[in-house]
Amino acid sequence: MWFWHLVVDYPACSVILCRFCLFYVLSTGSRYISKAAAKAQLDYDYDGPLMKTTVPGPRSQNVGAVNFFCNYDDSRGNYLVDVDGNRMLDLYTQISSIPIGYNHPALLKLMANPNNLSTFVNRPALGILPPENFPDKITESLISVAPSGMTRVQTMACGSCSNENAFKSMFIWYRNKERGHNSPSEEDLSTCMINQAPGCPDLSILSFMGGFHGRTMGCLATTHSKIIHKLDVPSFDWPIAPFPRLQYPLEEFTRENAQEEARCLEEVEDLIVKWRQKGRPVAGIVIEPIQAEGGDNHASPDFFRKLRGIARKHGCAFHADEVQTGGGSTGKFWAHEHWGMEDPADIVSFSKKLLSGGYFYRDELQPYRIFNTWMGDPSKNLFLAEVLNVIRRENLLEEVARSGKALLDGLYDLQAQFPGLLSRARGQGTFCAVDVCDAATRDRILLQTRDKGVILGGCGESSIRFRPALIFRDYHVHLFLNIFSDVLAHNK
Amino acid sequence: MWFWHLVVDYPACSVILCRFCLFYVLSTGSRYISKAAAKAQLDYDYDGPLMKTTVPGPRSQNVGAVNFFCNYDDSRGNYLVDVDGNRMLDLYTQISSIPIGYNHPALLKLMANPNNLSTFVNRPALGILPPENFPDKITESLISVAPSGMTRVQTMACGSCSNENAFKSMFIWYRNKERGHNSPSEEDLSTCMINQAPGCPDLSILSFMGGFHGRTMGCLATTHSKIIHKLDVPSFDWPIAPFPRLQYPLEEFTRENAQEEARCLEEVEDLIVKWRQKGRPVAGIVIEPIQAEGGDNHASPDFFRKLRGIARKHGCAFHADEVQTGGGSTGKFWAHEHWGMEDPADIVSFSKKLLSGGYFYRDELQPYRIFNTWMGDPSKNLFLAEVLNVIRRENLLEEVARSGKALLDGLYDLQAQFPGLLSRARGQGTFCAVDVCDAATRDRILLQTRDKGVILGGCGESSIRFRPALIFRDYHVHLFLNIFSDVLAHNK
Repeated sequence: MWFWHLVVDYPACSVILCRFCLFYVLSTGSRYISKAAAKAQLDYDYDGPLMKTTVPGPRSQNVGAVNFFCNYDDSRGNYLVDVDGNRMLDLYTQISSIPIGYNHPALLKLMANPNNLSTFVNRPALGILPPENFPDKITESLISVAPSGMTRVQTMACGSCSNENAFKSMFIWYRNKERGHNSPSEEDLSTCMINQAPGCPDLSILSFMGGFHGRTMGCLATTHSKIIHKLDVPSFDWPIAPFPRLQYPLEEFTRENAQEEARCLEEVEDLIVKWRQKGRPVAGIVIEPIQAEGGDNHASPDFFRKLRGIARKHGCAFHADEVQTGGGSTGKFWAHEHWGMEDPADIVSFSKKLLSGGYFYRDELQPYRIFNTWMGDPSKNLFLAEVLNVIRRENLLEEVARSGKALLDGLYDLQAQFPGLLSRARGQGTFCAVDVCDAATRDRILLQTRDKGVILGGCGESSIRFRPALIFRDYHVHLFLNIFSDVLAHNK
Repeated sequence: MWFWHLVVDYPACSVILCRFCLFYVLSTGSRYISKAAAKAQLDYDYDGPLMKTTVPGPRSQNVGAVNFFCNYDDSRGNYLVDVDGNRMLDLYTQISSIPIGYNHPALLKLMANPNNLSTFVNRPALGILPPENFPDKITESLISVAPSGMTRVQTMACGSCSNENAFKSMFIWYRNKERGHNSPSEEDLSTCMINQAPGCPDLSILSFMGGFHGRTMGCLATTHSKIIHKLDVPSFDWPIAPFPRLQYPLEEFTRENAQEEARCLEEVEDLIVKWRQKGRPVAGIVIEPIQAEGGDNHASPDFFRKLRGIARKHGCAFHADEVQTGGGSTGKFWAHEHWGMEDPADIVSFSKKLLSGGYFYRDELQPYRIFNTWMGDPSKNLFLAEVLNVIRRENLLEEVARSGKALLDGLYDLQAQFPGLLSRARGQGTFCAVDVCDAATRDRILLQTRDKGVILGGCGESSIRFRPALIFRDYHVHLFLNIFSDVLAHNK
């Protein structure tokens, strides 16, 4: 009975005793309540942080590499609750992977639909035995947000598998192009079984210093963000280009930044030529629209347009890795839409906020031969379809643009107020970042902010990254800025 | 109301109208009902195949690479139902990945528990923000079936990610061993970021011809089962040893098979020495207890014991890949338990029947530095814990040993009856296979058997593999053997 009430009637249950409602009542009685007007709030959100202990608290003992243990039952909306009852405004959202907050009523309701039961209980081998309606379901979900110029998608279980298989698609496409037809030679067939060329060809993927594309061995050969990811793991001799290092504020460094981007593009072309001469032609170029793990490094739309042109000129596939940037947090569903191109990429990979993984691809990169047992998970697609409904119904991309602007304006103010601490505030939508003077100070600020009830993430050398859910609103921004400002004042 | 009934009261609802019960009534009224005694049957299973069309039927149009589309709502127990209403006894189970059949009432019931809701809705970044009770949950599930000598497990989302990260663990362990301490040199740190040695060392994994370990690029370098997997994808220069090709019946070829295994082991040692001399030392050896995709190739416990000894002698880690063999279908929970060793492996990887992925490891292969966003999925662990309860409660490993013996005895009979068609019947538990005279005949037999209501899988050149769920019983065996015998008679 209690359960049935909870998942079916949830949004209207504020006077009935249930776990979530009870906490709502508790929270409004708390002395840590925020100043934001109650009417402005999401009815499924808490109204502010509530800290009972430092974090990790006593119940998160022996955490090791773990930050702290969480109470996901009690977490709601923008707020993550830990096992000590500390309730924190979450601007990191499980490494940017929670699209519409915790325990969103629409997702809870979905689980009460009996038609969805068998999708959770019977995970199919999607590549050979898909559910009856799966093509329609994919059309409703992923195809409804397909990047411009793309009508095909390959689902996968996680971000690394998505990029691994995207790379394979590019290699197969490139070799078919080299052969001019689809029939491999006898030598191709015999050598591939023993890992030797030409069957396993000496092709490469060009990536960028500071990039992150995952940690499986193919992905890892294109990842260059942190030593800890790469040390001791064998890799491929693939070319690595510099990613532009822009100077901020952008409007003061127009000429310098244009020169920097031109330098990087020139290096890309040099590497493509050099690797072709080495006998390891570049089959594809992989790049994040914003380098995330590597420090929230941005480049201009002009840079990406020119890079795409270079890929086309040299016959390389162009792969936009939107695993972290995709899903709406830049204010557009795909970050590469900001480039303003009709035909920006051959492959767009995704995961995280899309709840499982995969990649969109252009027709000629057809994925016959891309296969594994599960190839994704229809139960995650169920959630995704509902997430997309919520995004559309609640105009969340507009909300993101609005709250993102408030967040970035706030960061500009704070870096003006604390010039010795903060610099290079930057962002698109709520996908924002700011640099701290050094790594030790950054790490200290992250912990102090957390102890005051706000979870942030670090990235790059000494950056703080902001990755709130798409339901992050203006008043959450102000709540955060008040707390962050206090912490910065203590670190002046 | 209907839903609440369905998921909470399901096992007792046989007189009330609900989707599953209705179908139970329908099925008992079918004219294709099997001859097995009704009392012997599982109450959540169908009682026999029911074929309305050939497969794929009219509603499975435009299937492409897909076998056919499925109705997972109506599938039950050992029976997969397609969109045309054909009900097939499933001896392939989504490439060996359905442990206790379709829509098992224990799993449906689990979804009615409100305490489980937030585990489905809020997928955490397990490595940093695990749920409160997650260590206990893992202890109840994975640790309760940990292979002998292992008390640690790393969860992952799929089989390929499991093996990729297991390989990385072995490389890191090997380099730490080479260094004699944990501090990498300045050169290690600077070279790893650009994919160069010594930071990205020229280490290798030794694998076996015919092996299958996944299709991401690290895994694929150890996979050698089919050309279609490997063609056009760059790979590593890693050593590949021959896997024994045993002659059957085993008791007639004792001497020949022992010689064959000795030859393969000698080659393994030669390769280890040769690759060390080439400057690409073997950090680890990966092997399946039974080569599955490669054709259900078995070797003796003696072979594996000696291989383990060779790994130890040469300082290589030993990795048993139990992605397909693990989970009970050989009659023991792990196939390598048949080797009778206290300490068989350093790493045991799993996926498929375990519902998500991961690997067990010995203490010294500690996985600090193994990380990604999700690192598994607690909702899959919920199901796994319940699957393990069912396995224990219903003594399913004993059932597997019993039905596996019936299946193998039946295959022996059939190969005696059809010596021109079948040979080399072999198996452990229900993990059985038989060779067909050629690939074309094998493929035709698979389709004809399917049209008579039994789903089988192919593997290797011309083998048929049997991968029923753990709830496959004697009477299912006889039902299958009757149908299979008819098909074989038509192909004599």
